[in-house]
Amino acid sequence: MSMFKVVQRSYSNMSKGLKHLVSISDLSTSEFASLVDRAAYHKKLIKSGEPVGSEISDALKGKLVTLMFSKRSTRTRVSSEGAAVYFGGHPMFLGKDDIQLGVNESLYDTTRIISSMTSCIFARVNSHSEIQQLCQHSSVPIINSLCDTYHPLQAICDILTIKETFGETKGLKLAWVGDANNVINDLAIAALKSGISVSIANPEGITMNPTILEAAKLVSEETGATLETSHDPKKACKDANIIVTDTFVSMGEEAQKQQKLKQFASFQVSSELTKLAAANWKFMHCLPRHAEEVTDEVFYGKNSIVFEEGENRLYAAIAAIEHFVLPSK
Amino acid sequence: MSMFKVVQRSYSNMSKGLKHLVSISDLSTSEFASLVDRAAYHKKLIKSGEPVGSEISDALKGKLVTLMFSKRSTRTRVSSEGAAVYFGGHPMFLGKDDIQLGVNESLYDTTRIISSMTSCIFARVNSHSEIQQLCQHSSVPIINSLCDTYHPLQAICDILTIKETFGETKGLKLAWVGDANNVINDLAIAALKSGISVSIANPEGITMNPTILEAAKLVSEETGATLETSHDPKKACKDANIIVTDTFVSMGEEAQKQQKLKQFASFQVSSELTKLAAANWKFMHCLPRHAEEVTDEVFYGKNSIVFEEGENRLYAAIAAIEHFVLPSK
Amino acid sequence: MSMFKVVQRSYSNMSKGLKHLVSISDLSTSEFASLVDRAAYHKKLIKSGEPVGSEISDALKGKLVTLMFSKRSTRTRVSSEGAAVYFGGHPMFLGKDDIQLGVNESLYDTTRIISSMTSCIFARVNSHSEIQQLCQHSSVPIINSLCDTYHPLQAICDILTIKETFGETKGLKLAWVGDANNVINDLAIAALKSGISVSIANPEGITMNPTILEAAKLVSEETGATLETSHDPKKACKDANIIVTDTFVSMGEEAQKQQKLKQFASFQVSSELTKLAAANWKFMHCLPRHAEEVTDEVFYGKNSIVFEEGENRLYAAIAAIEHFVLPSK
Repeated sequence: MSMFKVVQRSYSNMSKGLKHLVSISDLSTSEFASLVDRAAYHKKLIKSGEPVGSEISDALKGKLVTLMFSKRSTRTRVSSEGAAVYFGGHPMFLGKDDIQLGVNESLYDTTRIISSMTSCIFARVNSHSEIQQLCQHSSVPIINSLCDTYHPLQAICDILTIKETFGETKGLKLAWVGDANNVINDLAIAALKSGISVSIANPEGITMNPTILEAAKLVSEETGATLETSHDPKKACKDANIIVTDTFVSMGEEAQKQQKLKQFASFQVSSELTKLAAANWKFMHCLPRHAEEVTDEVFYGKNSIVFEEGENRLYAAIAAIEHFVLPSK
Repeated sequence: MSMFKVVQRSYSNMSKGLKHLVSISDLSTSEFASLVDRAAYHKKLIKSGEPVGSEISDALKGKLVTLMFSKRSTRTRVSSEGAAVYFGGHPMFLGKDDIQLGVNESLYDTTRIISSMTSCIFARVNSHSEIQQLCQHSSVPIINSLCDTYHPLQAICDILTIKETFGETKGLKLAWVGDANNVINDLAIAALKSGISVSIANPEGITMNPTILEAAKLVSEETGATLETSHDPKKACKDANIIVTDTFVSMGEEAQKQQKLKQFASFQVSSELTKLAAANWKFMHCLPRHAEEVTDEVFYGKNSIVFEEGENRLYAAIAAIEHFVLPSK
Repeated sequence: MSMFKVVQRSYSNMSKGLKHLVSISDLSTSEFASLVDRAAYHKKLIKSGEPVGSEISDALKGKLVTLMFSKRSTRTRVSSEGAAVYFGGHPMFLGKDDIQLGVNESLYDTTRIISSMTSCIFARVNSHSEIQQLCQHSSVPIINSLCDTYHPLQAICDILTIKETFGETKGLKLAWVGDANNVINDLAIAALKSGISVSIANPEGITMNPTILEAAKLVSEETGATLETSHDPKKACKDANIIVTDTFVSMGEEAQKQQKLKQFASFQVSSELTKLAAANWKFMHCLPRHAEEVTDEVFYGKNSIVFEEGENRLYAAIAAIEHFVLPSK
């Protein structure tokens, strides 16, 4: 389109040296590890109850932190708002009724205007292409807060939770029993970067995104952790230290609900599956949880760390703001 | 349910010594009086225009104050947000479309997650059992901001307003001409605790909650103030210092509107009723007000203190945060 | 109505000496110029990256800034929230579903209550009479953030943008090619006050508000700048330094969309029109923009200053808070 040709000439983000958080694949292994470490650092600081210094608490004083959310959300919203407030910023929530991306105004126009008045944008969108356009046109950092392909904040949070629980990540095995979706896309790469081998079981007819598998291969070569995929939950859970699942019916897939539930019939995480796992196994889930995904016994049992994981979303968002939004020292 | 058994073992609020604000009945007479006094203290401080100390203005700096509202609201919302901001906190409003309590996720799961990232929760719900569940599962204080049984913030505000107007509360008579609802439930107990005798007139076919009547009896014995109930507005207003009414059709009762209006036909507060009252009578109403409840002459007249009462909601919310949320000194 | 008689006696804003921002016509030429200058001052301060003093950043600390918006909005919302946060206040957004002005409660009652708990109200309403009622009953300043007759924040922003672009405003010519609406009503007066002559082209059948034309006449006499109206876009654009248009179908006019588009058929701003303009012509638009109003070539071209203009909404809102809300020094 001619519009974009005109635009490209007069306006380019590349020259601004902006860093956006789009997916875990974009981060080097050490950059990702540093995000997890900083999340842990801020968690410790907050839990200590000691007053935080003004270099933290006033870092975004007087500034807006925009949440542009096309989809409803509890955890992502609360954690992003909490992180903005921790740094003294003002989270401004724009929901799907406040701003319909691309409906009454082009996404390009909206992005340029909003980014000119705010310190950063947490964007929860439908299609990954929306994140790409936001990154292309925004004058401030974009934090991908869920798109149909990636969910990097969840991955930072999950590795933080695993590290807190097991002390060391290297050599662990993570089993994914579920869909091939945005959550596992980023979690697989994040785990491999952390030295955790990953075994993914998707139902018959569902396969992982080839781009992720390719990225995973490169990370495997770097860290030695391995990725395998199958359609067999038992194979995935065998000797696993961490068992993870997620919703079987993502937002937007409500029409296919019955078909998907049938496809996932043998994928509920239950004691039968967890008894194949390593002695120190833990259960994780990014929430919200529905009964078909995991039994009450596992979900509310002593091996479940889902609520620690949920709380850690806050610290992941804090690390993301510190790394991508605050001026580097 | 097995789920809760599992939960109870690993997680209990009781051990945290958390204080929640559920209803006025839960508060001792001196604790309630102290809430009213502190509300007056902060009002005076704010009205003085003097800068408040950082022990107040930064008390919740960097922290979220969550408003979880299943029902629309003007006063409760503005006063809660204002109170949070007074203490330097960031009010995060979650409305019925942001978070449908118990719809896509169990109330238990939602409560644990949100409470792990916030300093307290102002909850405006439908059924009282939701408040009870929130209190049971939250790791931070719950401030009941209206349920179908109680409305404690309104009661704190009302006694503050009465005290400001009359100087002394002991020995006054309060007449309630209206429904048997959440507002009078807490106001009756609050008035009795403050030495104000209460005369309630409900229409035929409507009677007060027996739990409230029982609680009232105990407070009567302690303070000497009396509670009487009847179906006769004139009896209630006879020699009353304060006449109070409220909506005749509460939120959720829209279907029965015609029937309720008929039932309340003779309950409009008018000059005819107020001329039975004491010479210094005042009119109060928690708002929003509809014409059937009170005549313009009374509502906008010189004996009406409804706008002073409305403003005092702010100071009631401030006192609630100070008492239930801030660390005690 | 008797209600208002009662009210007027006990309650009057006039005695409070409150200043509201209703329309540009209400401001003296020097008062308006000072608003534009202060907007430029704060923009420079923010862009410098230097820390702002606490007399700015804490000016509204602990206070609510209410946004009462009956209509959806991107720019007005983000800029008002950003301005409130710049001064340390907490913007509280009340949308059409949070508070239906005059639906469940009289506008008078709602205004008195909300204004008693907040530092000021940014009001985006439908009819101008709502702004008038808000001003009459509010105990705090009202900032008109769009009504069907005026849009003063846009006018402050636009003159700031023109001044930044051309250095001097005196002697410029501004062409308006579009509807006779709230935006041009305030922009015409603002331009004339700034010494900019204005040529308005409305389609056949559409004529400017006579009140505005009368006000314009007075300003013309003061500053020497002239206002002409016609139905001819070419006449308006002849030698113009600034060409401005806006939506052809305002919010609320969706039903007449086809008819209005027909009426505006020859009003699209295109190269054909802009080649009639002065050599240094610029294009402005308050956004959101639709394709029928202006070609991509003009809108995204090198003479377009629409994104600078959009960003300047923030500084206009800052100047408005400083002038109308903060205590004068």
